[in-house]
Amino acid sequence: MKKAIVLLSGGLDSTTCLAIAKDAGYACYGLSFSYGQRHSAELEAAKRIAKQANVASHRIIPIDLGGFGGSALTDDNIDVPESEADGIPVTYVPARNTVFLSIGLAWAEVLQADAIYAGVNAVDYSGYPDCRPEYIDAFQKMADLATKAGIEGQGAKLETPLIDKTKVEIIQWGNRLSVDYSKTVSCYQADSNGRACGRCDSCRIRAEAFKQAKLPDPTVYID
Amino acid sequence: MKKAIVLLSGGLDSTTCLAIAKDAGYACYGLSFSYGQRHSAELEAAKRIAKQANVASHRIIPIDLGGFGGSALTDDNIDVPESEADGIPVTYVPARNTVFLSIGLAWAEVLQADAIYAGVNAVDYSGYPDCRPEYIDAFQKMADLATKAGIEGQGAKLETPLIDKTKVEIIQWGNRLSVDYSKTVSCYQADSNGRACGRCDSCRIRAEAFKQAKLPDPTVYID
Repeated sequence: MKKAIVLLSGGLDSTTCLAIAKDAGYACYGLSFSYGQRHSAELEAAKRIAKQANVASHRIIPIDLGGFGGSALTDDNIDVPESEADGIPVTYVPARNTVFLSIGLAWAEVLQADAIYAGVNAVDYSGYPDCRPEYIDAFQKMADLATKAGIEGQGAKLETPLIDKTKVEIIQWGNRLSVDYSKTVSCYQADSNGRACGRCDSCRIRAEAFKQAKLPDPTVYID
Repeated sequence: MKKAIVLLSGGLDSTTCLAIAKDAGYACYGLSFSYGQRHSAELEAAKRIAKQANVASHRIIPIDLGGFGGSALTDDNIDVPESEADGIPVTYVPARNTVFLSIGLAWAEVLQADAIYAGVNAVDYSGYPDCRPEYIDAFQKMADLATKAGIEGQGAKLETPLIDKTKVEIIQWGNRLSVDYSKTVSCYQADSNGRACGRCDSCRIRAEAFKQAKLPDPTVYID
């Protein structure tokens, strides 16, 4: 059976990505990171989602990006804004996807995995440099030179099926694959039970997408 | 003052690299990793070297590559051979430099550092895919697309001054910069005091290089 590493944050996109990888016939290896994010609701969600999807393995790797500072998602001295201005958001975590994909690449090589799935998306989060197709292409080229498997032509292929999809399209795709979105956490300020604030950009984009997709919003909100 | 991240393993190459970065006028930020290597002698050496070099900061980041297995350097089930066959050695750690450089990139972006120094070398360790110039070039291209600083043309430049140098040339360069090689640990099987086995490939290459450089070998050996 083909093997795929699936980066799994516990959010809507990565959970959809896991369902897509499973549907494509891969044995899935979930990879999550404890990287200094403010709350653990995401990781708890990732654990439940991985278990429900019956993954071959789920690893949570601690990596202290928070210690470097520089992002509202990991630095208590920077407030998460309820609405983002144009440009690169303050919720951007420096080099986050590069670090996560690199660790995924390490595991992929050991497992001799065929693919690494990442739910990066260039539509709703166009402000993040490491979510763009040109970045993903450059990472693949680097990865093919970085590893024993890569230089032997057997390296893992980076799969980003959601990169050009709108949130509505993502939800519709996941719905066809029976993804249980009530288990996913998208809110940057979710409480310890994974309940969403309903006010931040991430919450608003998500709620609007369920509405446009004509699907009931299964999100559990605070209050 | 310009800032540079310097990947610092505690070995001969990275210690020389630190001296080169200092000599080039950078305020240096040492970055080491606890990645499941079998012994902590390297990290103890890195701490002493960073302190002696008066770095602006020294961080040791725990990252569990050992948990993935696949290398004699982190997996107790694979023996470190005293001599390597041709090809990629079993001491190769999957995607190690990619993971280390990625974390260096994250710190560089937060610090707004100008450079990331890495003591990779394609001469003595030609079997490692992630020590070759074409890999370094690909990493730079990816990094320039990955980060806010990079896309603004302010990204850190990856500096690998030792990539095409022989061990003899490296030692001679370091000697001119007054590097104290007695503090460095190169042996894959060093004891807890950092004393070298004198028998492994790494020890033999190092001892031979001091001989050829016509410099006294300051290495402390077991027995």
